[in-house]
Amino acid sequence: MYSFKNDYSEGAHPRILNALVESNFEQEEGYGQDRFTRKAIELLKETIGRTDVDIHLLSGGTQTNLTAISAFLRPHEAAISASTGHILGHETGAIEATGHKILSIEAEDGKLTPAQLQAVLNAHPDEHMVKPKLVYISNSTEIGSIYKKDELVQLRNFCDENQLILFMDGARLGSALCSAENDILLSDLPRLVDAFYIGGTKNGALIGEALVICRDALKEDFRYHLKQKGALLAKGRLLGIQFLELFRDNLFFDLASHANKMAELLRTEISDAKIPFLTESPSNQIFPILPNALITELQRKYSFHVWEQVDADHSAIRLVTSWATKEDKVAAFIEDLNKALIK
Amino acid sequence: MYSFKNDYSEGAHPRILNALVESNFEQEEGYGQDRFTRKAIELLKETIGRTDVDIHLLSGGTQTNLTAISAFLRPHEAAISASTGHILGHETGAIEATGHKILSIEAEDGKLTPAQLQAVLNAHPDEHMVKPKLVYISNSTEIGSIYKKDELVQLRNFCDENQLILFMDGARLGSALCSAENDILLSDLPRLVDAFYIGGTKNGALIGEALVICRDALKEDFRYHLKQKGALLAKGRLLGIQFLELFRDNLFFDLASHANKMAELLRTEISDAKIPFLTESPSNQIFPILPNALITELQRKYSFHVWEQVDADHSAIRLVTSWATKEDKVAAFIEDLNKALIK
Amino acid sequence: MYSFKNDYSEGAHPRILNALVESNFEQEEGYGQDRFTRKAIELLKETIGRTDVDIHLLSGGTQTNLTAISAFLRPHEAAISASTGHILGHETGAIEATGHKILSIEAEDGKLTPAQLQAVLNAHPDEHMVKPKLVYISNSTEIGSIYKKDELVQLRNFCDENQLILFMDGARLGSALCSAENDILLSDLPRLVDAFYIGGTKNGALIGEALVICRDALKEDFRYHLKQKGALLAKGRLLGIQFLELFRDNLFFDLASHANKMAELLRTEISDAKIPFLTESPSNQIFPILPNALITELQRKYSFHVWEQVDADHSAIRLVTSWATKEDKVAAFIEDLNKALIK
Amino acid sequence: MYSFKNDYSEGAHPRILNALVESNFEQEEGYGQDRFTRKAIELLKETIGRTDVDIHLLSGGTQTNLTAISAFLRPHEAAISASTGHILGHETGAIEATGHKILSIEAEDGKLTPAQLQAVLNAHPDEHMVKPKLVYISNSTEIGSIYKKDELVQLRNFCDENQLILFMDGARLGSALCSAENDILLSDLPRLVDAFYIGGTKNGALIGEALVICRDALKEDFRYHLKQKGALLAKGRLLGIQFLELFRDNLFFDLASHANKMAELLRTEISDAKIPFLTESPSNQIFPILPNALITELQRKYSFHVWEQVDADHSAIRLVTSWATKEDKVAAFIEDLNKALIK
Repeated sequence: MYSFKNDYSEGAHPRILNALVESNFEQEEGYGQDRFTRKAIELLKETIGRTDVDIHLLSGGTQTNLTAISAFLRPHEAAISASTGHILGHETGAIEATGHKILSIEAEDGKLTPAQLQAVLNAHPDEHMVKPKLVYISNSTEIGSIYKKDELVQLRNFCDENQLILFMDGARLGSALCSAENDILLSDLPRLVDAFYIGGTKNGALIGEALVICRDALKEDFRYHLKQKGALLAKGRLLGIQFLELFRDNLFFDLASHANKMAELLRTEISDAKIPFLTESPSNQIFPILPNALITELQRKYSFHVWEQVDADHSAIRLVTSWATKEDKVAAFIEDLNKALIK
Repeated sequence: MYSFKNDYSEGAHPRILNALVESNFEQEEGYGQDRFTRKAIELLKETIGRTDVDIHLLSGGTQTNLTAISAFLRPHEAAISASTGHILGHETGAIEATGHKILSIEAEDGKLTPAQLQAVLNAHPDEHMVKPKLVYISNSTEIGSIYKKDELVQLRNFCDENQLILFMDGARLGSALCSAENDILLSDLPRLVDAFYIGGTKNGALIGEALVICRDALKEDFRYHLKQKGALLAKGRLLGIQFLELFRDNLFFDLASHANKMAELLRTEISDAKIPFLTESPSNQIFPILPNALITELQRKYSFHVWEQVDADHSAIRLVTSWATKEDKVAAFIEDLNKALIK
Repeated sequence: MYSFKNDYSEGAHPRILNALVESNFEQEEGYGQDRFTRKAIELLKETIGRTDVDIHLLSGGTQTNLTAISAFLRPHEAAISASTGHILGHETGAIEATGHKILSIEAEDGKLTPAQLQAVLNAHPDEHMVKPKLVYISNSTEIGSIYKKDELVQLRNFCDENQLILFMDGARLGSALCSAENDILLSDLPRLVDAFYIGGTKNGALIGEALVICRDALKEDFRYHLKQKGALLAKGRLLGIQFLELFRDNLFFDLASHANKMAELLRTEISDAKIPFLTESPSNQIFPILPNALITELQRKYSFHVWEQVDADHSAIRLVTSWATKEDKVAAFIEDLNKALIK
Repeated sequence: MYSFKNDYSEGAHPRILNALVESNFEQEEGYGQDRFTRKAIELLKETIGRTDVDIHLLSGGTQTNLTAISAFLRPHEAAISASTGHILGHETGAIEATGHKILSIEAEDGKLTPAQLQAVLNAHPDEHMVKPKLVYISNSTEIGSIYKKDELVQLRNFCDENQLILFMDGARLGSALCSAENDILLSDLPRLVDAFYIGGTKNGALIGEALVICRDALKEDFRYHLKQKGALLAKGRLLGIQFLELFRDNLFFDLASHANKMAELLRTEISDAKIPFLTESPSNQIFPILPNALITELQRKYSFHVWEQVDADHSAIRLVTSWATKEDKVAAFIEDLNKALIK
C-alpha cells in the first residue's frame, strides 16, 4: 500500500533529523530565544529580503491561524474566507472559539476576488452585523490552485482601500511558489500581504510554520499571543533548527519542487488518459475524476482521499505528492491506472 | 557557561532521536492516528495498569492545560490553583482566554489542602460568583515539592464530596514519582485524580505531554478540543514515537531518576555548607538562599534563575537538573560554590 | 410620518406602565428574586401547562440567544440556523463571541427541515469540524413565516434521533401563535422543543423575553449564566411586573392578535391590488413587492424597511404591525397605496 | 419589615415613570437612535461640559463592565482591580468569560494607589504573564469609600506614564459626587479617567448606566460591542427617557444627596452610640460593627446584609440608603437600635 493521501505521511527530510542530532547537546535558552531560532529568523529575513518584518515559529497550521487571527482582530471583527478555506470547515471552529465569525464566500477555484469581497462589505453595513476586517487566503489553496501576482495586487489594493488585513495561509506556500504557473517571489509577499506563513510541516519538517508579520500595526506583543495559545514551545530550538536547515542551500524550495514534479507527472499522464479534473491545480494536489469502480480498484494498492462525488458513477479523488514521494511509486500508480482503464 | 536554568535546555535523549530516524520513511496516518501513537498509548495504558483511561498526546504544558481545562468546564465554572500554580501566573492568561476564572489560594509549599478548598467553596455560595469546579494541582509543584499519597487521597475524597474535578499538571511528574520521598505509583493516579498528564518535554523528549483522562464524563469528544486548540499535530507520529521510546525499558523513569540524583547531589552538598533553602523540594528543582555577592560570582560560570529576593543581602536561586545534567558539572558547581564560600 | 418599520417603535401597553406605577414603592429583593418575578413565572408555568420547566426573564432577544446558546453548548459544538436566522447575520457575531460557530442552511422560507439538517450532519463527520449540536429556529421567522405543528414534530423527532438540542427563538412567538394559520398551542411547546422564549419586547413590553427551559439537562446553574452575561437585572421586578401583566387576562395574546389583524388588513388589500409578496407570511410582518417609484412615493408619509431589490424596477418592502398599530393608519396607508397605483 | 439591603429595592423615581407614560405613544427609531436617547446624550455632554466624549446607554453595571472592558483590551491584556472590586468577585467571571484575567490588589479601603499598581507591573515583566493594561476603580467603592481628586490625579499620571487605561465603575457615582467629602466635579472626570459610567439603576432609574468614553482610541466601533454583548435594547428609548429625566433639573444629584443624607443620619447616630465601623464610608453605604445578638434583634424588623464576621461575637452589617429611603424609617431604625443597646 502506497499513500498519496497527504504531504505529511512521512517524518522529516534526513538533513533536518541530522541537524537535530548534531545540535542535540548544546544548551540553549527556552521559548524561542535560542541561537538556532534567532539564526533561522535572520536567514528567513534574508531570504525574504526584508529585515523589518517580524517572524515567529509555530508548530502547525491551525495553531498559526488561530493565534494570528485572534491577535489581529478586535472582538467585533470578522474574517472572510473562501468556502473551501481551511479555517472555515476544517479546524473545528478554532477561529470562532477565539470569538470571531468567519464570513464565507462561495469560490469554485478556492480563490477570492475584490468583487466578492465588495459584496461582503456591502452586506455588512452597520453594527448589527460583524465588521469584516481580515481577508484569509491560502496559497496554494485547499484545492490546489494558486494566486497569480496580479490577483494578489488587486486584493492588496482592495484591502488598502477598505482598511482590511490580508492574511495568507501558507501551509503549502512552497508548492505554490515552485509551481510552473507561479509568478510570485517569496520576497514579493511582504508588500502584497500583511502577514503570511511559510509551511514547514507539509514540506519536509516534523512540525513548523514560520509566521511573517509585515504590517507594523500587527506586530506588537505577538509573543504574548503565542504563549497564551500554547504555541510557545519550551524547546523552541526544535523549530529553529528545522527552519535553519530548510532555508540553508534552498532545501525548502528543492523539496517543494520535487513534490510539484511528482504531481506534474501524475497530472500529465492522467490527462493523457483523457481523465478530467475537478479543479485546475498546478501544485502538489490534483483532483482527477474517476469511475467509482476504478477508484475501488486503485484503493487495493494505494491510499488517497475520495474528495467528492461528482455523479452517480464518478468521484473526484485527491492525490497529494510531497518531498518524500517516490518517482517509482508514481510510475507504478500510473501503470496501474492505465491497466485498469483498459479493462 | 553551564546552565542549571531549566530542564529543557538540551534536545532529546539520543534514543528518541534514533527512534525518529529509524521510523522516518514509514508512511503513516496523520493527526495522531498513526501506528506509533496507537502503540504508545497502548504501552502507556499498560504501564499505568488501566485500559479504561483515554490518552491523548499533546505538545506542551500550557497547551495541555488550556485544552483540558476548557474542555472540562462549563462557562461559569472556575479552576482553583495554588498561588504558585503555573496556569495562574505563567501562562499569559491562557485559561482565562478560554473564558474561565482561576481562583488563587496562597500556598507556601505550592500544595493545596481540603481545608483551603473548603474556604474557597464557602466564599462562592451563589450565582453572583463563579462556581469553583476544577482543582488544579502540579506534581512536582512549581517550587519542587511533591504530593504524598495520603495528601492526594484527602484531596480525592474532598473532590468527590463536593463534585469537583481533580486535575494534575504532570509537566514534572517523572521527577515527582522518582523522588526519594514519593510513595505514589503511576498506577495509583487514575483512582486519585480525574485527569493528569505525563510530561515528556521536561524529561527527555523534544516536545510531548501525555494527557490521561480517567473520569468517563470528561472523555467525550476530546479530539475535537485538541483540534480546535491547535493541538492536533499533522505528524502526530512525532509524539507517538517519543512516548513509545520513553516508556520502553523504563527510559522515562531512568531519566527522571538521573535528574533527581543530580539534584540530590547539589542539595546535600549545599546543605552541608550550611546554606538554607527557600522550600523543601525533594525533586529536580532546588532553591538555595545565597548571599547576593556569591550569586554574582557563580553567574560568571553558571546560568540559573534568581528566584526571589529574601532580604537585602540574600536571594533564593533556582537550580534545575535534568536527564541531561552532567555529574562532573554538578561537581564543578559545588567546588566553585565552596571555594566562593571560603573567600 | 407613520412608521411600519418594526414592532418596537412605541413604548409599552398602558396596562404595563400602570402596573409599574402601582408597584413602584414596594420594596423587593433584587436580581429576579422579587415577588413579581416569582408570580410571573408561576403564571407562565400555569399558562404553558407545565410546572417542571425552568423560566428566566431576560431583557432582549440577542441577550437571550447568546446566554442560552452559550450555556447549552460545549466549546466544540455548533448551532445550525437558517440563513435568515437572526443569530446568523443580525447579532454582530454574538454567538461566535461566546466561542461557537453557526452553520448556515439556505432556506427560502426561513424554516428548517430534517432533510436539511441531515445534510449538515453528513458534512460534519469528524473532529476536524465542529460538532453540530443545537438547532436554532425562529417562530415566527425573520421573514414572517410560521412553523406548523407537524413540521415541529418532525424536527423534534430528528433532534431526538441525533442528540440535537432544539431551540426556538420566540421574539415574535405571540404573532406566530395567534396567526390564522397556526395549529400550535403554547402548551405544546415544552414537548416540541428543548428551550424557547416568549418575546415581550415586540409584543407590548418595554423589554423582556421569558426563556423557558424544558429539557432537564439544560437547566442546571442557569442563573450563573444570566449573571455572567450581564442579563441579571438588579431591578428584576421590571421584567416580572411586565410579564405578570402580559399573561393576566390574555393581554399577551390580545396584543399579538391585534398586530396580526392589522397585518391581515394590509395583506388582503395589497393582495387585492394584485401586488405580489416576497414570502408567504401569515404573521405581523409582510413583504409586498412594489415598483421603486411607488416606494419613494409612500416613503413621503410612511417609514418602513426596503428589504431587498427584486429586479431593476422593483423592491420588496417590509411592513411590520404591532400591538400599537392604529387601524386608521392602516386604512390611510392602503388608501395612499391605491391612489398611487392608479396614477 | 423595612429594607436597608440595597439601593435597588424600589422601582423608579415617579418623575421617571411619568416621563415614560407621557412619551409612550411616540413612534421612535430603535436601538438607541431615538430622539430621547439623542437628547439625553446631548444633555449629559452639556452637564459633563464636554462635547467630544462618546456616550452610550446600557442596562446594568455588569453589562457595562464586560462590554467596555472587553472592547478596550486586546486578548493578552488584563484588568487590575482592588480585591473588593465588583468585577473581581461579584460578576460570575463576566470579564474572564470575555477572555481577560483580572489581577487583584489587596486594598483595605477599596481604593488603588500608584504604588500598588507599580508592584503589579513589576510582577508582570514579560510574555509569560498577562500584560496589565486597564485599571478598574469604583467610585464610590464597593465598601463605600470615595476617591479624592488628588488620588485620581495621581492615578491618572501613573496610567499616562505606563500606557494604562483608567476605567471608573460609577454604579454609585451619584452618591460619591454628592458626598460631603467629595472634591470632584462630574466635569472633572473626562480628564481624570479614560472612561467612566454614571449609574442610574442605583440612583432612581429602573435600569440604566451612561457610559462615557473620554479617550479617542477607545471610541471606535463601540456600538458593535453593545450589539454583540446583547446590550443594545430594541426600545433604547427606555434608557434615553430615564436619563433625560434624571439630568433635567438636577434630579440625579438631588436623589443621590437624599441617599447620602439618610446615610449620614444613620452614621451620626450610630457613631454617637459608640459603635465602630468597618470602613470609613462617606457615601450611601455604611458598615457598623454590631454584637451578633443585636443583629438578630434588628433583623426582626429590618433587612440588610450581614457583611462579614469581625470576631466571635461581632459582625459588620451593611446598611444602604437610596433615593427612596424614608426618613421616618431611618429614625425608627435608630430608635430600635438605641433601645436594643440599652437592654
